Amino acid sequence: MVGQRYVSILSNHPGFEVVAVAGSESVGKKYKDAVRSREALGFSREVGALEVCPTEPSAIDADLVFSPLPTEAAVEVEPAFAAQGFTVISDASPHRMDRDVPLIIPEVNPGHLRLLDAQMKRRRWKGCLTTTPNCTAVGLTMVMKPLHDALGITRVVVSTMQAVSGAGYPGVPSLDIIDNVVPYIKDEEEKVETEPLKMLGSVKGGRVVDEKIQISAMCHRVATTDGHLESAYIETSSRADPAEVKGILREFRGEPQELDLPSAPRDPIVVREEPDRPQVKLDRYSGSVPGMSVVVGRVRNGLTPNSIRLSFLSHNTIRGAAGSTILAAELMDKKGLLD
Amino acid sequence: MVGQRYVSILSNHPGFEVVAVAGSESVGKKYKDAVRSREALGFSREVGALEVCPTEPSAIDADLVFSPLPTEAAVEVEPAFAAQGFTVISDASPHRMDRDVPLIIPEVNPGHLRLLDAQMKRRRWKGCLTTTPNCTAVGLTMVMKPLHDALGITRVVVSTMQAVSGAGYPGVPSLDIIDNVVPYIKDEEEKVETEPLKMLGSVKGGRVVDEKIQISAMCHRVATTDGHLESAYIETSSRADPAEVKGILREFRGEPQELDLPSAPRDPIVVREEPDRPQVKLDRYSGSVPGMSVVVGRVRNGLTPNSIRLSFLSHNTIRGAAGSTILAAELMDKKGLLD
Amino acid sequence: MVGQRYVSILSNHPGFEVVAVAGSESVGKKYKDAVRSREALGFSREVGALEVCPTEPSAIDADLVFSPLPTEAAVEVEPAFAAQGFTVISDASPHRMDRDVPLIIPEVNPGHLRLLDAQMKRRRWKGCLTTTPNCTAVGLTMVMKPLHDALGITRVVVSTMQAVSGAGYPGVPSLDIIDNVVPYIKDEEEKVETEPLKMLGSVKGGRVVDEKIQISAMCHRVATTDGHLESAYIETSSRADPAEVKGILREFRGEPQELDLPSAPRDPIVVREEPDRPQVKLDRYSGSVPGMSVVVGRVRNGLTPNSIRLSFLSHNTIRGAAGSTILAAELMDKKGLLD
Amino acid sequence: MVGQRYVSILSNHPGFEVVAVAGSESVGKKYKDAVRSREALGFSREVGALEVCPTEPSAIDADLVFSPLPTEAAVEVEPAFAAQGFTVISDASPHRMDRDVPLIIPEVNPGHLRLLDAQMKRRRWKGCLTTTPNCTAVGLTMVMKPLHDALGITRVVVSTMQAVSGAGYPGVPSLDIIDNVVPYIKDEEEKVETEPLKMLGSVKGGRVVDEKIQISAMCHRVATTDGHLESAYIETSSRADPAEVKGILREFRGEPQELDLPSAPRDPIVVREEPDRPQVKLDRYSGSVPGMSVVVGRVRNGLTPNSIRLSFLSHNTIRGAAGSTILAAELMDKKGLLD
Repeated sequence: MVGQRYVSILSNHPGFEVVAVAGSESVGKKYKDAVRSREALGFSREVGALEVCPTEPSAIDADLVFSPLPTEAAVEVEPAFAAQGFTVISDASPHRMDRDVPLIIPEVNPGHLRLLDAQMKRRRWKGCLTTTPNCTAVGLTMVMKPLHDALGITRVVVSTMQAVSGAGYPGVPSLDIIDNVVPYIKDEEEKVETEPLKMLGSVKGGRVVDEKIQISAMCHRVATTDGHLESAYIETSSRADPAEVKGILREFRGEPQELDLPSAPRDPIVVREEPDRPQVKLDRYSGSVPGMSVVVGRVRNGLTPNSIRLSFLSHNTIRGAAGSTILAAELMDKKGLLD
Repeated sequence: MVGQRYVSILSNHPGFEVVAVAGSESVGKKYKDAVRSREALGFSREVGALEVCPTEPSAIDADLVFSPLPTEAAVEVEPAFAAQGFTVISDASPHRMDRDVPLIIPEVNPGHLRLLDAQMKRRRWKGCLTTTPNCTAVGLTMVMKPLHDALGITRVVVSTMQAVSGAGYPGVPSLDIIDNVVPYIKDEEEKVETEPLKMLGSVKGGRVVDEKIQISAMCHRVATTDGHLESAYIETSSRADPAEVKGILREFRGEPQELDLPSAPRDPIVVREEPDRPQVKLDRYSGSVPGMSVVVGRVRNGLTPNSIRLSFLSHNTIRGAAGSTILAAELMDKKGLLD
Repeated sequence: MVGQRYVSILSNHPGFEVVAVAGSESVGKKYKDAVRSREALGFSREVGALEVCPTEPSAIDADLVFSPLPTEAAVEVEPAFAAQGFTVISDASPHRMDRDVPLIIPEVNPGHLRLLDAQMKRRRWKGCLTTTPNCTAVGLTMVMKPLHDALGITRVVVSTMQAVSGAGYPGVPSLDIIDNVVPYIKDEEEKVETEPLKMLGSVKGGRVVDEKIQISAMCHRVATTDGHLESAYIETSSRADPAEVKGILREFRGEPQELDLPSAPRDPIVVREEPDRPQVKLDRYSGSVPGMSVVVGRVRNGLTPNSIRLSFLSHNTIRGAAGSTILAAELMDKKGLLD
Repeated sequence: MVGQRYVSILSNHPGFEVVAVAGSESVGKKYKDAVRSREALGFSREVGALEVCPTEPSAIDADLVFSPLPTEAAVEVEPAFAAQGFTVISDASPHRMDRDVPLIIPEVNPGHLRLLDAQMKRRRWKGCLTTTPNCTAVGLTMVMKPLHDALGITRVVVSTMQAVSGAGYPGVPSLDIIDNVVPYIKDEEEKVETEPLKMLGSVKGGRVVDEKIQISAMCHRVATTDGHLESAYIETSSRADPAEVKGILREFRGEPQELDLPSAPRDPIVVREEPDRPQVKLDRYSGSVPGMSVVVGRVRNGLTPNSIRLSFLSHNTIRGAAGSTILAAELMDKKGLLD
């Protein structure tokens, strides 16, 4: 799923050119014959004609490698490519929490990219590895970042309602989700509870030191195709006023906006005032770059003055995966990290 | 929806006999011709042959009136029937929070029925009015009751994923819910945040005094037909251990179980150990009386020792509506309140 | 639903400008405040600022009126506008089968527009009325047209699986469609069985004479949001070979393609070779103008040499409604019928 | 899926006792630990305690073997068991069309069981093999049987809308079916077009001779959990009147009804008069034995006097699988074929 979306987005990218497509199962086939899309995702004629090559450093000649690998494969393959001199950007999970591997949302913690120098030295790699977070952690962290800067977040209790595309393909059997909600997604809550702390943390001595915030995540799978909805109860050090919170979220901008990167939405966070938004079906393609903005709504007082409640939606395979990773690559490119 | 379920359950009830069916739109038709069921709900031949009569006290001769009326109608109709000498049991919302009207879950606060004496005196009614709670508040309050008794609950942050049948018929348009989640249900959160406090409260001087607990509810509509799933983060005065909490929930029994009432499930709360339960589709008909047990799962530590997390499921049109109300009637009958 | 899609498409139309928006319920409000979209449909700032006016000829100054009115309203309103000099284009049903009212699919029967002269004379109207067909009849007729021309169709047995957006908003209650199929859509089968015969018919003496083909339609509502899928068994006068049929369908072009109209897809019919296409979710936005191509697949032999089987999909609110109607207006414009 | 339903039904069967449960993957586990139910299917304590044994004749001591095996496994395993003396009843497909293997719907062709003598002789088996049909062919054949007897069917054009449980577990990925219809089910149409002909055929010289009827099937997968809906256009030798057809269907009875078998519904076919029935959600559990009756509705004239149209629904995992097979076993038992 995510790999196809990479190819689709990169097919018409102004700064990147797809020069190779790798995959163990379809080696030797043309990409257009190998792919069996579950979505109406297009790709250019040139990319369709590429022959799928093996997932090995020696088989590929490229400056940058996007790695939408399954977890087990990523464990070994990503370091192997980085060691051989490739700049690897991955949204696979195994190396996300390594202390010297940047876990990046370009609007949130672009400064963590300076870990790469230390990483290359310590690991004696010719290349480097950058990661992007879990699809559910992305929306949460983007909402937390400006609120934490302004009000100091002490605790988050979040409940998620996640789309089936988050599980890939074939993923969730239809018998498990039609007329159903499943209050469990394997290994998901751990990621949502820890990844934001790393991204909101600081770099010291070539390593990330986590921010100290308590996060409780309860994750649910629901019968939607794309778009993760999350509802959060947030406690803050300072008094949290709904009007002020909405202003803080609306004004949030990051380096991608300042640098006017191709995949950067004008507004990283869109705030809606209607009582019944965001809705998965209506809001998942929000943003000047469709699917790249997080949509926040239902901003309300919590039970105490130092708390706030809100719901937010992010497109899990765009902002939550391929889109964010390509945005990270654009940022690295602009900063000269791909040269 | 709820009315049809009443008729279906009461069609074969050992203690009650349906002697009249009232409804403004179908007066004069036989019940079997008036009803257009959205579910495979049956009813007895005798009930099917009843002629629908107007919703007026003078048109009905019965000891007990079940009132699955829409909110606006209930405001006036229920007091009118109670004034005329009927014992009215209602799951409509307008009178639920009246200080002298019992809001009852038979397992939770049967003692509140003693409000009825004061109610009849103060209001100079020949009959009386008892109410049952919002469908989402039922499951939450049943879970809170034994935990509050044992550990002292101070705060609850709950997120709900509610079925479309909760909105009645025609209710939720399909365009609003296929491939969607709506993070808003009108007036729902207010009910979930206040009704449990009344039910867990105490009776003093013919009035209920609410219990003091903070409840935050974030309510979502999802594409399920029946069964409300809720995930809660609960803070307690005493240390909350998952194993202990599961034991407390499993051992919970109330008057309906002691009195062996016909609609009382053997276990008001069923606790499951699998990591991915309760699920709406698999667990909504749980209980020795199908649909009358609340199913709890994913009992886990919270962020502090004095907190616990869990998910629970209740069938919104059975335990959350008709089933609970009939159970309340059975309780009143056994206590001699219908004589 | 259909009205909003009109506005969305026309917001950026190269040949038409939206100068007025009429609607009885929101008179005086700005369009952007009056509309409550169920889809992520956009519109221009200018259109959003238009004040909704009453649906009366005297309140509107425009050359062309699109009428996405409900059936009952269309009966009287459309002739009233036409009488007053407006060119009315409607996808409402009441006047579709009038013998002197063109029922148009621009690729199929553009010649029927010459009915308008006779219509204006006979009815003594200063303007005129053109209609477009039922959303399910559109796809069927587009597939029938080239096959009938080439092979002579004698009988069609078609079964449809239709999306909920076909019923408008609020339309189909979610309780009626989640985990369900309803083998009935009011008045639908009659339309699907008669409208194609008029469109494939010929104009004689200012009136349409229906083509003689037997059509049996069995219509079903399924739990999809947009896109009507139809499977047809077609009997022909000449031998029908699958490869030849696919060629005929692929090569089909009409006046909109010749005239290069803005809403005309390059290929009115897209034929797919995969065994499991067309699929609603994957193919509904097919075509160089998204949603304007009919997608055909599973072209197979029937039970006799003079028969063929196939499945096809059309987007019911684009090709089946607003898109087709705007294409008809573009055709009339190009032919000088709007001057 | 089907296997679990067997066990659930047989857990409380008056005539059969489950003495062994076999399965290659869980050998040695207790059944209750091996099963991971996707439905709320119960089973007795005794059955739950059975240890799963290997699928080998030597490991099992039983009179009768039910075989809900996947196709590939059934090819070899079923003959192996039959050769060793077991009476095997299977709803797997590989041997269904063998000329000397009965393909049985107990109400339709109980006489085909006399093939078993010839089968055992020719194949030199100590036991025998009986099969039951494809889940979609069951409903169709049950509707065809009384109509063919009365009116002589010459041709059937049927379109199906099938539930995801028909594909087993994990089966259909949710990404393939939410908001989608797939007009293709592998190998399904061939079965629906041929199996009824065998069941309606006659036995001659120890072999079945197919009935000569033309059947066209177009099969679709839709987003329902259980229950296959089919809409058919049927041509007949004699004039077909809707009222007469309804009478014929309602009066249909077979040997299971005459013999009053435990799994036999009183009415094999239920005919409904409402314009919008049968519906999957409302009618799938129809029948005095829930799920064992086929529900027919929308009986209408076809395009000629010798034709009729109707829709029908059958529960695919009950009447379409385990229920029908157990009914066949009950029939064999009553006829002394299990002794």
